[in-house]
Amino acid sequence: MALDANAVQLPLSMLVVFGSAKLLDELFERLGQPGIVGQILAGVMVGPGVLGWIAPNEFLSALAELGVMFLLFRVGLEIKSSELMNTGGTASLVAVLGVAAPFGLGWGLLLLWGHAPIEAAFTGAAMVATSVGITAQVLAAKGLLQHRASKIILGAAVIDDVLGLLILALISSLAKGQVRVLELTITAVLAIGFTAIVATWGTRAVNLVIPPLLRTLKGSEVQFTLAMLLLFSLAVLSVYAGVAAIIGAFMAGMALSENVTHRVHDLTQGVTELLVPFFLVGIGLNLDVAAFASAPTLWLALAVLAAAIVSKFAGCALGAYKLGWPDARRVGVGMIPRGEVGMVVAQLGLSLGLIGQNICAVVVFMSVATTLVAPPFLKLAFRRIGRS
Amino acid sequence: MALDANAVQLPLSMLVVFGSAKLLDELFERLGQPGIVGQILAGVMVGPGVLGWIAPNEFLSALAELGVMFLLFRVGLEIKSSELMNTGGTASLVAVLGVAAPFGLGWGLLLLWGHAPIEAAFTGAAMVATSVGITAQVLAAKGLLQHRASKIILGAAVIDDVLGLLILALISSLAKGQVRVLELTITAVLAIGFTAIVATWGTRAVNLVIPPLLRTLKGSEVQFTLAMLLLFSLAVLSVYAGVAAIIGAFMAGMALSENVTHRVHDLTQGVTELLVPFFLVGIGLNLDVAAFASAPTLWLALAVLAAAIVSKFAGCALGAYKLGWPDARRVGVGMIPRGEVGMVVAQLGLSLGLIGQNICAVVVFMSVATTLVAPPFLKLAFRRIGRS
Repeated sequence: MALDANAVQLPLSMLVVFGSAKLLDELFERLGQPGIVGQILAGVMVGPGVLGWIAPNEFLSALAELGVMFLLFRVGLEIKSSELMNTGGTASLVAVLGVAAPFGLGWGLLLLWGHAPIEAAFTGAAMVATSVGITAQVLAAKGLLQHRASKIILGAAVIDDVLGLLILALISSLAKGQVRVLELTITAVLAIGFTAIVATWGTRAVNLVIPPLLRTLKGSEVQFTLAMLLLFSLAVLSVYAGVAAIIGAFMAGMALSENVTHRVHDLTQGVTELLVPFFLVGIGLNLDVAAFASAPTLWLALAVLAAAIVSKFAGCALGAYKLGWPDARRVGVGMIPRGEVGMVVAQLGLSLGLIGQNICAVVVFMSVATTLVAPPFLKLAFRRIGRS
Repeated sequence: MALDANAVQLPLSMLVVFGSAKLLDELFERLGQPGIVGQILAGVMVGPGVLGWIAPNEFLSALAELGVMFLLFRVGLEIKSSELMNTGGTASLVAVLGVAAPFGLGWGLLLLWGHAPIEAAFTGAAMVATSVGITAQVLAAKGLLQHRASKIILGAAVIDDVLGLLILALISSLAKGQVRVLELTITAVLAIGFTAIVATWGTRAVNLVIPPLLRTLKGSEVQFTLAMLLLFSLAVLSVYAGVAAIIGAFMAGMALSENVTHRVHDLTQGVTELLVPFFLVGIGLNLDVAAFASAPTLWLALAVLAAAIVSKFAGCALGAYKLGWPDARRVGVGMIPRGEVGMVVAQLGLSLGLIGQNICAVVVFMSVATTLVAPPFLKLAFRRIGRS
């Protein structure tokens, strides 16, 4: 029996989000465009800006967050950490230049536009964040995760996340009027140390612990259960260490990559298939179309967008110049999307009072637009490689 | 980067719920007890009553609801609707007697205990609801879904849900002081009509629609996508028709059972494995241990529990007498758990002002306790059949 008026909400919002995402995905693929762009636009369409069928809410954002965690976990399952460590030098250079260029350009642009120094710096920080989820989804869907450029992108995205944390911490403490050097150092050591330790010894620890557990435990689907526990544990620990939960999820996948069964792959894939549309639609849902009715805001948004694309591409491609132009271009394009990370930084700045409502809308626009722009570029950069 | 203080909440609550469920599951299996009981008790333990690590919240209850929807969808995938229809006569008798006996006994008991007629009637109605999720999980885990008694239980549970709806609608309108016959008739026709039509023609409709769609659509995992769309659509429609979303999910599974691939099974299984612990822990989370500090409430709770167990068992076993004692006993035991359904009815009664806080606590206790009692009885009733 359907007991109350709210009983329909859950299945209905599942249907609207999942259904609209898959519908526009199919439509875009048929038009020769990346389906992922269709899914994000589905969010814009069903969201408050256009049709107004669905508003962002706590449940949907939780599903979105779970979705991107599972997405990166699944990507991690296909990458050996040793392979990622081998790209370390290039990935670090890509990350550093890919952080410095957008930060500098964003900061300068906003200062030129007449904004306060702290607002300008915060906008620059919001332009730093790479959403690896979008690129990972495109690469995974095309079977390109084993490509050299893909591994550089993933490695750089992890380092990028840590650098983004440090910049934000620095600006927040600047905004409070005092730079606490000790606090910042602890933040840096914790984030870098945690990431380095898990990436270096994660696989070995898993190889030590999992096989005896598998022999001992009695339940069904024990491998999957252990994989989930590792995923959630590393997500929790990474948040405590200051890095994003999805970085922990990615490292959990990598740690398992060498001795995971086909069964775990399949079961994880089910969760990912169900939840990734919620991540993509969630990005579109947050775009506030109404904010761009004012012409100055629109022009600023377009300028910030151009700066965000050019600076990230140039910085990252330069960092990867050693690989030659084709791969450097792939890396540059792959780092462009800011996705959910840029949006969360914008919300944070707003809540701290460091940026105004219109700058927040501009950053959200930049995040969504870079995310929409990247997949077609990626498709172009990787053409004649991978499936379809 | 972990951007705000709440970033840890999502992975942490996933870890606590999933981890505690799996831990107690393992422990109970090792002690020769049903793991499902361990998972429900994990909810009692981490919940507000004992450790207080987690409180029921909107996100967790949404995951729980999704979990039981996927559970019944997966069970439906293993049952052909034609097989279920064949059990129709017996299943109907089981449902009717299994609804009449608890309702009558509950009503009478509360009247004898000195409660108001409307409160007594509502408590009786709350004792009617069968949570098929628990039994389905036990039977599925032991590979017993193909057993004759299992199919009767599933068929009876569907009819039981419709009957429960009608009783609740009747009592609610009695409470408002007027019985609107037309409204009740429409409710009945809609619920019965929807269920009968989907059960009868669902498979045929799916066989007509799905194959051409599969030939046309381009995306990856198209079969899984279509299965999810059917699942959410039927869940939505069943709520509009007045029956529970899980009944729609179950019928979606049945409609697909004849031409679903192994791949869809595996992907669905991943979601189910992840989410079912949230359903089970969610049941335990809602038990308010503190309410039973008062002796009269405790005695009433025990009396209601005894009445709920005896009446459901006797009614359903009597309905299945034609099958002989072993199967009649299995059916009777399988219908005992009230689980989440009883709890939702209790909440509804409280919000309508038809029952008091202490009766609400009693009904929740009855719901949890019948759910804990059923798995060991089921194990006993089905011993020497099925795996492990």
